[in-house]
Amino acid sequence: MKALRINGPERLELDRGAPEPRIERPTDAIVEITRTAICGADLFPYHGLTPGFEAGTIPGHEWVGVVREVGPEVRGIAVGSRVVNTSMISDGICKHCRSGRPMQCTNRALFGYSGVYERLEGGQAELVRAPLADRSLWPIPEGVADDDAVFVADMLPTGLSAVRRAGVGIGDVVVILGCGTVGLMATMVAAPIARRVIAVDAIEGRRAEAAALGAEAFTPEEAPDAVAAATRGLGADAVIEAAGAKAALDAAFSLVRGRGTVCVVGAHFEPDYPLGAGRMFEGELTLRFAMGDPLNDREALLAMIADERLRPSRLISHRFALEQGPEAYALFDRREAMKVVLTNDVR
Amino acid sequence: MKALRINGPERLELDRGAPEPRIERPTDAIVEITRTAICGADLFPYHGLTPGFEAGTIPGHEWVGVVREVGPEVRGIAVGSRVVNTSMISDGICKHCRSGRPMQCTNRALFGYSGVYERLEGGQAELVRAPLADRSLWPIPEGVADDDAVFVADMLPTGLSAVRRAGVGIGDVVVILGCGTVGLMATMVAAPIARRVIAVDAIEGRRAEAAALGAEAFTPEEAPDAVAAATRGLGADAVIEAAGAKAALDAAFSLVRGRGTVCVVGAHFEPDYPLGAGRMFEGELTLRFAMGDPLNDREALLAMIADERLRPSRLISHRFALEQGPEAYALFDRREAMKVVLTNDVR
Amino acid sequence: MKALRINGPERLELDRGAPEPRIERPTDAIVEITRTAICGADLFPYHGLTPGFEAGTIPGHEWVGVVREVGPEVRGIAVGSRVVNTSMISDGICKHCRSGRPMQCTNRALFGYSGVYERLEGGQAELVRAPLADRSLWPIPEGVADDDAVFVADMLPTGLSAVRRAGVGIGDVVVILGCGTVGLMATMVAAPIARRVIAVDAIEGRRAEAAALGAEAFTPEEAPDAVAAATRGLGADAVIEAAGAKAALDAAFSLVRGRGTVCVVGAHFEPDYPLGAGRMFEGELTLRFAMGDPLNDREALLAMIADERLRPSRLISHRFALEQGPEAYALFDRREAMKVVLTNDVR
Amino acid sequence: MKALRINGPERLELDRGAPEPRIERPTDAIVEITRTAICGADLFPYHGLTPGFEAGTIPGHEWVGVVREVGPEVRGIAVGSRVVNTSMISDGICKHCRSGRPMQCTNRALFGYSGVYERLEGGQAELVRAPLADRSLWPIPEGVADDDAVFVADMLPTGLSAVRRAGVGIGDVVVILGCGTVGLMATMVAAPIARRVIAVDAIEGRRAEAAALGAEAFTPEEAPDAVAAATRGLGADAVIEAAGAKAALDAAFSLVRGRGTVCVVGAHFEPDYPLGAGRMFEGELTLRFAMGDPLNDREALLAMIADERLRPSRLISHRFALEQGPEAYALFDRREAMKVVLTNDVR
Repeated sequence: MKALRINGPERLELDRGAPEPRIERPTDAIVEITRTAICGADLFPYHGLTPGFEAGTIPGHEWVGVVREVGPEVRGIAVGSRVVNTSMISDGICKHCRSGRPMQCTNRALFGYSGVYERLEGGQAELVRAPLADRSLWPIPEGVADDDAVFVADMLPTGLSAVRRAGVGIGDVVVILGCGTVGLMATMVAAPIARRVIAVDAIEGRRAEAAALGAEAFTPEEAPDAVAAATRGLGADAVIEAAGAKAALDAAFSLVRGRGTVCVVGAHFEPDYPLGAGRMFEGELTLRFAMGDPLNDREALLAMIADERLRPSRLISHRFALEQGPEAYALFDRREAMKVVLTNDVR
Repeated sequence: MKALRINGPERLELDRGAPEPRIERPTDAIVEITRTAICGADLFPYHGLTPGFEAGTIPGHEWVGVVREVGPEVRGIAVGSRVVNTSMISDGICKHCRSGRPMQCTNRALFGYSGVYERLEGGQAELVRAPLADRSLWPIPEGVADDDAVFVADMLPTGLSAVRRAGVGIGDVVVILGCGTVGLMATMVAAPIARRVIAVDAIEGRRAEAAALGAEAFTPEEAPDAVAAATRGLGADAVIEAAGAKAALDAAFSLVRGRGTVCVVGAHFEPDYPLGAGRMFEGELTLRFAMGDPLNDREALLAMIADERLRPSRLISHRFALEQGPEAYALFDRREAMKVVLTNDVR
Repeated sequence: MKALRINGPERLELDRGAPEPRIERPTDAIVEITRTAICGADLFPYHGLTPGFEAGTIPGHEWVGVVREVGPEVRGIAVGSRVVNTSMISDGICKHCRSGRPMQCTNRALFGYSGVYERLEGGQAELVRAPLADRSLWPIPEGVADDDAVFVADMLPTGLSAVRRAGVGIGDVVVILGCGTVGLMATMVAAPIARRVIAVDAIEGRRAEAAALGAEAFTPEEAPDAVAAATRGLGADAVIEAAGAKAALDAAFSLVRGRGTVCVVGAHFEPDYPLGAGRMFEGELTLRFAMGDPLNDREALLAMIADERLRPSRLISHRFALEQGPEAYALFDRREAMKVVLTNDVR
Repeated sequence: MKALRINGPERLELDRGAPEPRIERPTDAIVEITRTAICGADLFPYHGLTPGFEAGTIPGHEWVGVVREVGPEVRGIAVGSRVVNTSMISDGICKHCRSGRPMQCTNRALFGYSGVYERLEGGQAELVRAPLADRSLWPIPEGVADDDAVFVADMLPTGLSAVRRAGVGIGDVVVILGCGTVGLMATMVAAPIARRVIAVDAIEGRRAEAAALGAEAFTPEEAPDAVAAATRGLGADAVIEAAGAKAALDAAFSLVRGRGTVCVVGAHFEPDYPLGAGRMFEGELTLRFAMGDPLNDREALLAMIADERLRPSRLISHRFALEQGPEAYALFDRREAMKVVLTNDVR
């Protein structure tokens, strides 16, 4: 089969003769991929920044497809059904899973990753093996398009987690720093709830997209005045840091009100990050990091899409065939795209 | 009157001719001090580390006394009644106060401080002026001794805030790093609720006190194994960092479980504090800082003392007369004391 | 001055020679009324159903006006400013008030009521005396019309309380039984948050209004199927009972899912109400009653109105001059109106 | 094998020739019973009060034993291990289970019951079949005696649920109405957390047991004054109604403070229960019903027993051999016993 592989730094290559995955354990399923998205987290191994990453790993932790085959102990996933994955697999039996925290599973692994977690081939291929299919796959309801469902693997749950863990409530003023895909997912979820969403990005096109989703959009330079005006100088009730930069974290601490919450969303691998402890103390602040939790949130999110409360596919800016993967990665890496989807026309 | 003053770095001196405070605004009260405690936060100005601190400020933000005089607009505080203060004054009318966050009051000031906040003379004197007495003072119920009540000004609410903001629940394993007064206050509050409190300190006497309060006590070296054993390797549900050191924050992040909370309690003024962002991300951790909130918690805490649920005075290790203040500060600064109380026998 | 008075059952009469209210205590204010609304709760004394109600009481607990005079101890309310009241006054010093529960104040009284609470003349007059003006009044920001602000006295906080206490969360299916003003206020608040709001009323016009606010509207007969379809037979996450009828409470228990919440909103004075304990047990249900809390919520609600997130005035169906009060009450009592506002053109 | 059977009203009989249960589905396990307890809920079918109950059902939903055999798809439960059951079985795949609400499972069944749920033979026998053993059984850790573990099947989780759902917090005053086993379980859990637990029962021996667990114990007649004294007349923060009587629910509403919670614990099957809606409205009260949730809480509770935080076995008042079942039921039914345990010495 055809598959993309990360063969080394900036060496994302198409392998036309990759072996087809097979059922290895009775809880596995094999899925024919119809859509797979490139995520910002894919750029870490793409640039060789993931410690221990194994050359040749097939990337892709956001995908949608049709089930071709299931192992004898798969109960809830039928051959022929349309499914979306969870970015991370979890065993369902460790103490974290038993306590409802699957993203912390002691046996977790990320599709398309190796090194940090045990190697697990991803979905940027014609076929993928999904371990623990009853947990790692979920049927897509009628009325939800593949283009929307692919966001339920990771992006949209991440936006929802950010909003939840930031503690956004009715009447609040929320700042979202960074209007990339994650920031816009958070904007999409927060806009109906908050009194005001103040979205901040240096890039005009991203600000325009945030505004279209219901935010007020500002440049980083404009943000302090905008927040002060919206809160009579008190500061924002919550700040979601979706830019992944030290400057954004500093800005977050200066924009949030006393007793407020800063929620950092998006992958961080630096060993140390300077933190304004003085500000955190005198402001009694809360800082939390959030991953998305597709296992727990996928049903509600798919229902919200079906009910037309959310339409994440509007963020797809570019489409490529799987074979065009190298070109797609290069474009995405130049930050010229919002969301890039690779398409297989399997049927 | 007699008063202590911080006249410069390490220059804590007795002024025998300090002018008596007077009612300046109709909401003021004048209190004759019977007990005042030295707090770790007093050591910052004592060592000249508080930016903008004015030489001559009378320290003391934890005190108990008897009301001598009240302004014409004081309603709830009667002359002759025994009262305890709130460490911080708050105006009751700003947005923070209206939202139940008095420690963030936009007009807050700390008794005995200047520089960081507007100067407000403290209680290490024979008399003190309490602005906004209906908020800054609270009557001590029958059956609560001055020695216990003085902890309600700051220390005991701080311990309670730490436990609350760390999210300690029934059945949890909680680590408390640092068994100084704040750490022990948190231990005292957490011990009945948590399944296990694992208290960590390098000093044997402090460990013994933690154990007497219901914790299991360990050295920093022993802590990782103790936490692993208590949690089957998962990590603690919550960690309270009451040691105020970079090493303790690092330890906190390594001891807490995924999705757990680290609550830092105690004053921090450093501009930057290196933070393990990688660990926070992969563990989806929460880091929060806590101040005590005597205004909101004093009633419940005084009732718990009256009902013999809490007895904070057991931590008083040394007593001095007000005149012996310089000696008391020197002793406290050498970290040879747990809690030092200065006593005035006004009646 | 002119004032309406409830002189007996169905005897709502205009008194053209009512004495003008005066400052009685230094914390009072006198307000010239510009808008006052008739509330369903006014119909209890109107029909003689409020125990101990004193003939002659001036009704009206929802009003807006301009401050004419303030007592010497009023700080935050200036003569000439436009204000809205809180339906209930609270003393700010009792244990309930200190704990943030002003609607449970041990000295509470409702404007325009007597009997159940100590008598307090209401706002359906040219002037009204507002005790404890710093709490019972709040300045209306620029950009918020009197017509919208009058809903902040009671109706809109009641809708918000219902949504909060019903525990409505992102992605939830919420049923609102009864599309009178309270039910529609809850609809207005819940519609942006919930995945679906299923509003239920027998009257077509009310259903149309609910639909205009973002709900799906059904008759009571259609509701069970609609809820089953929206929840795949599981039941609604929350039900807000805003109809005030035994049949509605029964319906609520049958429409809510296991572990769900039924929140009853609106006044109830019956001594006993038969409750399906068997259903509550096997479903582990929660039943809670909600009053609005204008004191705590008015600022956020006024900001949401100013930011055009809420526009409650759309529910005003009829307007009368104060002198037409008897006619307005009769109309409202025939349930031919949604919301009736009495207008004084004081300037 | 030997088994007890409920053959009709008050006809609890020993069957010495009951067929041994066998593995029916690959997820089943067979357990040899060592301890089984009689629960108040067993008295409903014992008296013929459970609609549709099938004569011959083997009762018993609280038991401990040793695994004799497991089906081929049981993963986490090993032959020979000591286990405790969950009173209710749940499928783990319905929407309720997926949302963490196993007691509401759409396929739930109670061991030892029929009629209300699908028939499932209970543990008052030498052997029992446990369906879905990976969920319905849990290994008992070293250091936890069978006598304590048997309470984890239902009673102790029920006490914990009551305390959690009543919202008991640090410093609260809690009333527990009824000092039967459930009330005492709640007392045991609440006593360390609350400022005061006021336990109420007409029977002196039960009051003595509550007092031994850390409560203050009163007769129903004394309770109002005791609550008023403990709360300065405000009312209790939470009331747990564990008496199951109309009078107790009335008392609960009169003893709880405004905005407080009444949590009813214990089985209710009456169709209607008169409710003080007037009091619920003016007090903005919350009423909730609680079942225990052994699936989610068993691990923490077993750990608390192992750590000597809880010792539920102290409530065992009588022990019988399985063969003495009829005698044991008769005694329990006369309300002469606190907790009755039937013992099999299988090894």
